[in-house]
Amino acid sequence: MNIGIIGAGNVGGGLGKIWVKKGHKVIFSFSRNQEKLMALAGAAENSGTGSPAEAVQQSEVLLLSVPWGKVPEALKAAGSLQGKVLIDCTNPLTPDFSELAIGHDTSAAEEIAKMAPGAKVVKAFNSAFAEVYNSESRLFGSRRPTMFFCGDDAEAKKIVSELIMETGFEPTDAGPLKNARYIEPLAMLMIQLGYGQGMGTNIALNLIHR
Amino acid sequence: MNIGIIGAGNVGGGLGKIWVKKGHKVIFSFSRNQEKLMALAGAAENSGTGSPAEAVQQSEVLLLSVPWGKVPEALKAAGSLQGKVLIDCTNPLTPDFSELAIGHDTSAAEEIAKMAPGAKVVKAFNSAFAEVYNSESRLFGSRRPTMFFCGDDAEAKKIVSELIMETGFEPTDAGPLKNARYIEPLAMLMIQLGYGQGMGTNIALNLIHR
Repeated sequence: MNIGIIGAGNVGGGLGKIWVKKGHKVIFSFSRNQEKLMALAGAAENSGTGSPAEAVQQSEVLLLSVPWGKVPEALKAAGSLQGKVLIDCTNPLTPDFSELAIGHDTSAAEEIAKMAPGAKVVKAFNSAFAEVYNSESRLFGSRRPTMFFCGDDAEAKKIVSELIMETGFEPTDAGPLKNARYIEPLAMLMIQLGYGQGMGTNIALNLIHR
Repeated sequence: MNIGIIGAGNVGGGLGKIWVKKGHKVIFSFSRNQEKLMALAGAAENSGTGSPAEAVQQSEVLLLSVPWGKVPEALKAAGSLQGKVLIDCTNPLTPDFSELAIGHDTSAAEEIAKMAPGAKVVKAFNSAFAEVYNSESRLFGSRRPTMFFCGDDAEAKKIVSELIMETGFEPTDAGPLKNARYIEPLAMLMIQLGYGQGMGTNIALNLIHR
């Protein structure tokens, strides 16, 4: 697949590098620092850098991985996302990371869907720590962490589910995009555990069945 | 310990029966059906039934396990909870169970703390299915599910943490009571998975570390 990364920080950079290794063609975009983009793209033939608009033009799947406050600017730079799969891995944190800025009757995912008309938005990759994306493996012992995703377009969800699996997580369909209202607070719970409770960022969730 | 159950449905009934087996003295209260209360108390010497006010008088620890809409009536019937540990396992579901009625800038736990002045409120036991409480064991294979809890009183949290452990879950301190804003949506996510996504109610969450 051709995957464009909009926002090449710890999350977008970490996921993009995994996807390059898996053989996808990845375009890194939207960093204040061009050198950082070049470093991420590295010498791999199947990766490169560009503007957000170039990333969109060259990709069927886009990852939006910018801080919540940068979302309008990033989407403006991206241009039309009509027909594209847009993976939203943002969390609508307040600037001091202490709370969610929005929730309950909306979510970052739903707001992004409004800002990107025609995009097939899927919420995913928002509830694991960047450290897990940037390490050698996603495995915790022999266990794959669960990655919840949600969205309203069945075909887009199928693509994202496969990408989640390939990334080393167990994909779990959490229903319509509206259910981002429950997946975004889950990320905030993880942040509270990792930082507030001092558990660190090498933690993850596993949905268990019997 | 002396534990009063306020709301003897599938959740309160299931947990109360576990605690009776563990040797705690359990008073079941607040059911429309006196026969149901009697059946729950069974013939065990260390369990009984009473009014919510009697349950409060005879117990240091109370479990509030009523539907969200019944909370004001249940707390009114309970009377003063000054100095008591009040375990809130409610979720503020809308009457059709499709959404949370409140959230983001408050939570059921915080509202209950306002309604029960002087009570040491701890949010817990809200994110597992009643089926898990009513089955022979909490184990999923060899794994104990995680139970997140939060509250503002350290001593009350210690008591509840031990009770969670004894109940067969792995207790995980999720910080101040305010963080119920993240634990209540987590319960809604589980409900969406269990019912909306058809995964059933024999599922649970496990926080994993590496």
